[in-house]
Amino acid sequence: MGEAKEEEKKPLILYLRPPHPPLEQTLSLKFQILKPTSPTTTPIPQFLSTHHPSSIRAILCSGYIPIDAPIITSLPNLGCVVTTSAGLNHIDLAECRRRGVVVANAGGVFSVDVADYAVGLLIDVLRRISAGDRYVRSGRWGRKGRGEYFPLGSKLRGKKVGLVGLGNISSEIAKRLEAFGCIISYNSRRRKPGVSYSYYPNICDLASDSDVLVVACPLTDETRHIINEDILSALGKDSIVINIGRGALVDEKELAWCLIQGEIGGAGLDVFENEPSVPKELFLMENVVLSPHHADYTPESFQDLFDLSIANLEAFFAGQPLLTPVKCD
Amino acid sequence: MGEAKEEEKKPLILYLRPPHPPLEQTLSLKFQILKPTSPTTTPIPQFLSTHHPSSIRAILCSGYIPIDAPIITSLPNLGCVVTTSAGLNHIDLAECRRRGVVVANAGGVFSVDVADYAVGLLIDVLRRISAGDRYVRSGRWGRKGRGEYFPLGSKLRGKKVGLVGLGNISSEIAKRLEAFGCIISYNSRRRKPGVSYSYYPNICDLASDSDVLVVACPLTDETRHIINEDILSALGKDSIVINIGRGALVDEKELAWCLIQGEIGGAGLDVFENEPSVPKELFLMENVVLSPHHADYTPESFQDLFDLSIANLEAFFAGQPLLTPVKCD
Repeated sequence: MGEAKEEEKKPLILYLRPPHPPLEQTLSLKFQILKPTSPTTTPIPQFLSTHHPSSIRAILCSGYIPIDAPIITSLPNLGCVVTTSAGLNHIDLAECRRRGVVVANAGGVFSVDVADYAVGLLIDVLRRISAGDRYVRSGRWGRKGRGEYFPLGSKLRGKKVGLVGLGNISSEIAKRLEAFGCIISYNSRRRKPGVSYSYYPNICDLASDSDVLVVACPLTDETRHIINEDILSALGKDSIVINIGRGALVDEKELAWCLIQGEIGGAGLDVFENEPSVPKELFLMENVVLSPHHADYTPESFQDLFDLSIANLEAFFAGQPLLTPVKCD
Repeated sequence: MGEAKEEEKKPLILYLRPPHPPLEQTLSLKFQILKPTSPTTTPIPQFLSTHHPSSIRAILCSGYIPIDAPIITSLPNLGCVVTTSAGLNHIDLAECRRRGVVVANAGGVFSVDVADYAVGLLIDVLRRISAGDRYVRSGRWGRKGRGEYFPLGSKLRGKKVGLVGLGNISSEIAKRLEAFGCIISYNSRRRKPGVSYSYYPNICDLASDSDVLVVACPLTDETRHIINEDILSALGKDSIVINIGRGALVDEKELAWCLIQGEIGGAGLDVFENEPSVPKELFLMENVVLSPHHADYTPESFQDLFDLSIANLEAFFAGQPLLTPVKCD
């Protein structure tokens, strides 16, 4: 009886992310967890209607389930959404603002891992590391005959790298690439104070002046397909695109077409428009590195992320400011 | 007739490296070139015996043909060997010293490219980039079933990286890895003055204290198999080996065995003991990145290298000091 009362005192949270036993165990020390058994088959508002929706004041989510107006509307006392992702495009932020729901994300927890991965993809595409690995494993190295020569890659030093967006992640990427002797420029809505990299207010001009374009801005209605036909054409034949932001930042059909036609030189892609679906025509290309949306996670970061998410939920229930709040406008 | 005389005035060099039309064309502006048509079928001393060996004072070579005592002995007036490689293990330096032959190598021309590649291999093995590319191309991403989950890689920040050797290349590697938040230590024969990284006089101690061992020292009789069973065992189960030096620096059989047994965590290998032969048991391993000895070349570096090699030959024939001399002891 004592234990049940103790349990009742814990605040209730709605858990809308893939199962993760260690996280759920840690959460359960401080919260009661309501978890739809099969969010993909039963619509969540329908599930909630049978589970005292008025008692739910917070959601813990990730990028996998959209936190849309029907879900938000079905929870009359919702006050807080905490997402374990850095990206926010799965959350209806306008509806959150309208309802006065505060939102927290992963803040900078992933920035370092994503930046490392972006640089890894960049080196891989320029220096042909994955392609070289494939070449050796196929047994072609040292074999004599047509098509058995493995072409050289391209040098990093002196390459002009244009960053699309200059937030936490891009700043970490820039710091790393400076050590390789790359020349950094960026595009963002506004020039960043105290930043020495060249600023391009126009992304097409940035592309024209860059050997490598790294796409690292958040996905919003304004940035969807920000890398389109015009930008790819401005970038040019020997240049490469690295996308570690979100798939829909790039017009994927156009990118695939440019790669096939040799209109751009290569690509390193961790994200895709319709994950886990990847354009099949990229599978046979030697100048492309494909990655299963893995830039943002290492086991070492998970613990930091979970600690942060729980601290955000605790702050909300204690009436304190969130640790990593996001603007809902 | 005038042209023939002009040609005769040019110094004669023996060209013992793979064919390279642009290099040979540039060389021919300043030198007469003697080039065995088929160095692999006719022994070079035999070829030389029919080509006025006493008129040859300089050799231009690379790592592909050994410049051994029989060749050096067959050239009574040899005074200089210029190699387009950074490594010197193909040249009998003791014989050169005995004969008073000066030797020049590629100096630091490759350092930057090799360092970039080493970091690329390191990120690839830790963050599983090539493995992820293979996973996506195989169509397994998003497919449900056993073995379809793609495991996370490991974080770079905070990793302890031990450098075996601290010459030009390792120093460039260290500079880059510091930007990723790695902690750098090194082993070399002597502590380097003015270097802040932790120095380990004993390579086994370095391995014990490292998560990643980067092998980047020259191959000599002393360093052959410097990475042996003891070192790999000290390195331990979660650690990785990156080799961008020479294949024989590592006991390759032992390394393959340790990888298969899970005694070490992974490897990124650009060089092998019997290139282009690679131990077949590595071809199916997911924690290994294999590369066809490509770390040291980019097209952008070739021009620098050729300019340097020609400048070394010109210095020799002008009686000037070489630009990138190497010690023959």
